[in-house]
Order: sequence, then structure tokens, then C-alpha cells
Amino acid sequence: MTYCVGLRLNKGLVFMSDTRTNAGVDDIATVKKMHTWHVEGERVITLMTAGNLATTQALVSLLDERSKAPEDRDPTILVAPTMFQVARLIGDTLKEVIQANSDTGQSAEAAFNATLIFGGQIAGMPPRLFLIYPEGNFIEAEDDTPFFQIGETKYGRPILVRAQDPDMSFEDAVKLLLVSFDSTMKANLSVGLPLDVMTYETDTLKIGAKKRFKRENKYFRSISNGWGRSLKKALKALPDFVFDDA
Amino acid sequence: MTYCVGLRLNKGLVFMSDTRTNAGVDDIATVKKMHTWHVEGERVITLMTAGNLATTQALVSLLDERSKAPEDRDPTILVAPTMFQVARLIGDTLKEVIQANSDTGQSAEAAFNATLIFGGQIAGMPPRLFLIYPEGNFIEAEDDTPFFQIGETKYGRPILVRAQDPDMSFEDAVKLLLVSFDSTMKANLSVGLPLDVMTYETDTLKIGAKKRFKRENKYFRSISNGWGRSLKKALKALPDFVFDDA
Repeated sequence: MTYCVGLRLNKGLVFMSDTRTNAGVDDIATVKKMHTWHVEGERVITLMTAGNLATTQALVSLLDERSKAPEDRDPTILVAPTMFQVARLIGDTLKEVIQANSDTGQSAEAAFNATLIFGGQIAGMPPRLFLIYPEGNFIEAEDDTPFFQIGETKYGRPILVRAQDPDMSFEDAVKLLLVSFDSTMKANLSVGLPLDVMTYETDTLKIGAKKRFKRENKYFRSISNGWGRSLKKALKALPDFVFDDA
Repeated sequence: MTYCVGLRLNKGLVFMSDTRTNAGVDDIATVKKMHTWHVEGERVITLMTAGNLATTQALVSLLDERSKAPEDRDPTILVAPTMFQVARLIGDTLKEVIQANSDTGQSAEAAFNATLIFGGQIAGMPPRLFLIYPEGNFIEAEDDTPFFQIGETKYGRPILVRAQDPDMSFEDAVKLLLVSFDSTMKANLSVGLPLDVMTYETDTLKIGAKKRFKRENKYFRSISNGWGRSLKKALKALPDFVFDDA
């Protein structure tokens, strides 16, 4: 499993991903699931991946190779004119990778699948955030649903639904996401530290602040330890229940 | 889907269940998922069900019929000498119902399944809380894990893990469970109001306080509306994140 969240704020975009990959509880490893391509001053593109590791690594390698070889640059994610076109390119590449593995006659229909969150900005256009399905099609974040989750999404969803706010600062968004990730990691061993976070500030067209939270990170530990107490206080602050008059 | 929670406190047991049943999003109904049998002064037994409605209704009807017909009373859930024996009886009856449907040659292997939470007390012994699997076997709540969830368990789990406390009052437990149910209902349409709650106070050997929370219930609405604000305050109370020094 995996847990990644992409959040669209008025200030820009925030991406957070865990790094645990596993093929069974006795076969775990740390893998980066957040990948960024950029042409300074022109475009920044960030991709987060959940699903079969062979599929997502092949996808990233293909996107990478194709954007590096100049003769192969048209169309690539570094040249496509709009974020919508970039989303189509990534979706098509994903479909191509999944198809290539499925065509071997293996019957593991779901096992080669992957789901992606992808966002960024191209000069002259607003930042956009997408969720890309294994079939290669995709949906875009709108004002009513300004965030996407992939992987083990359920445990960390209630706090996002209740507390996310497009006017948030990047710092508050990171705090919120850490709580959402901590709730998930407490319940599902297949989501694990370290956590990668990246911000993108609208119209800067360069990679924003980045950070990796490891197990020993003091701030992460203060959030993880403090959240239990904070929740209990939040519960206490709600009106008390009385059996007779409710 | 369904959501039910059984919680073991030092004071006794608390049960909460939703009432939505659905066979597709266009075929929903309200059904009671909490059932109680008791012999005043001798035993109180509460059962909550998740899964195939035909299975759970047949199970409850069988348990009911067998406990009513005096000639068929031995062994029944009203006569079995210990909670462990009652759990075995319920588990065996569940297995019997699932088997009866599977034997028709239908291939819907999972579709007839059900999972149960069951708890109560028999005079002279401590209260006990069990989770019963479709296979008829079961596990018991212990101090390290003093609650069970069945159905759509993930959304409402983080708050339970962080805020449950064996020393809680029944009233605080109901408040906590309402928050857990509200978080779940906000994310999954197959869990829905009204909510049934029942408490059992240790050694009273009679049914405790009961309550049904309907959509228009003022207390439920105050929790549902207030929780978003409370969560935001709880987040604010955590130390602020700063990119540079974390």
C-alpha cells in the first residue's frame, strides 16, 4: 500500500507521500514515490504514484528518458503545451506500461495497476491538480474537492475533509497532512516513514520548499505525540451528552 | 455496508450501530442491526450485525426462535452457562445460516457472509465482548484492544484509537462514538442515520440506557456541526511547522 495526498490551495499546491513499499509484511523497502520535472520559469510538474512498483518505476523511467532525449522530446511532458496535455501523456504512458505487462499472458489483472496524483503549472496558465487512473483517464481537482488521495485513503480522510481550507498557509497544510499521515500509519503497517513533502507556490515556476520527515524528526514526533491529547481536548470541548434529554 | 462499534469500559459495555442497508445506491432501507436478549438478573446479551441482510436476519430469527421454544431451550443463548459458550452458539448458528445458502450451489461465496459483535454478561462472571467471523470462530476484546468495529471501519478508527479510554463515562463514550460515526457517514453513503446506542452497566444484569439518534436529533447535529470547528482548533493547538528548522 501507499498513501499520497495532493492538495490545492489558493497559494499553490502541496504534495505529500509516504515511502513504504511492500510485497508482503516480510518484504518491505523504502522507495521515493514523489517525482518532479521542471524547466525553470516555464513549468513545474510533480507526480506521486501508488500501486505496483514495477509499473510506477517503469512509468517514471519512461517519462524521464523521453524528456531527456531531445529528438524524442515532442511530445513529452516537458514540451506539451498545457497541463491537460501533460495529464494525457502521463495517462497514456501509464496505460502503455500496464498493457505491456498484461500482454505477457499473466492473469494478475489488478496487480500491475497504479494510480497517480499529478499537478503543477505551465507559464501563463493556472496551476492544476489531477488524479490519473490505471486506465489512463483522469479527473481534475475543483473548488468543491480541492484534494486527491491515493493508496490507503480512508483513515486519513476525515481530518482532511473537516480541516482543509483553500486559504491555508503551506505550513498549516503540512501540519494537517502530517496528522492525516500519522492517523494512517497508526492503522496500516503498509504506509510508513519517511514522508516526503513538497510545495509549489503559484506563478513561481520553480520547485518550492521540500522536506523529508524521518522517524527521528522532532517536529513529526511532536505532532504524532500531541495529536492524541489535542483530539481528547477537542472531544471535551464538544457539548456533553446526557441520556435523558438528547 | 454498515458500521457498528462495541466498546468495553471499566463501567461496562457500549454498543452503537447505524441502520442503513443497501443493495446498490438505488436500493436503500433502514434496518435495526442491534438485538438484545435478556433474563433480568441473570444475563444480558447484545448482538450487532454487519453483512448480508438475509443472513443476519435469519441468524437473529433462529437465535430468537430457539430461545423462545422451551423444548428447544437447551442449549440456547439464554441457557448456555458462559459467554464463551454463547459465542460458540452464535458462531455455529451463523455458520449454519451461511452454509445453508451456500449449499444451493450459488457461487456468491462472499455475498452471504456476515460479521458480528456480541457482548454482555452472565451473573457471577465478568462482562465480555466478542467479534464473530463468518467462519463461526471469534476473538475477544482484551485490555490492549478494548473495542471492536465491523463494516466500514476505517474512517472512524483513528479517533477511537486516539481517544478511547477504559475509564470513560458512558456519556463520554457516546460522544466519542458519535464523532466516529459522523466521520464515517461523511465519507461513505452506505452508513447512515438513525444510529442506535445501548449501554450495559457491569453487574446490573439488565438492559441499560438506550437511544436512537435520528437526523433531526439536536445533540447529534451539535456534534456533527461542532466537530469541524473542534478539529481545526485541535490542529491550531499543535506546534506550528516551519520549513527551515524542522
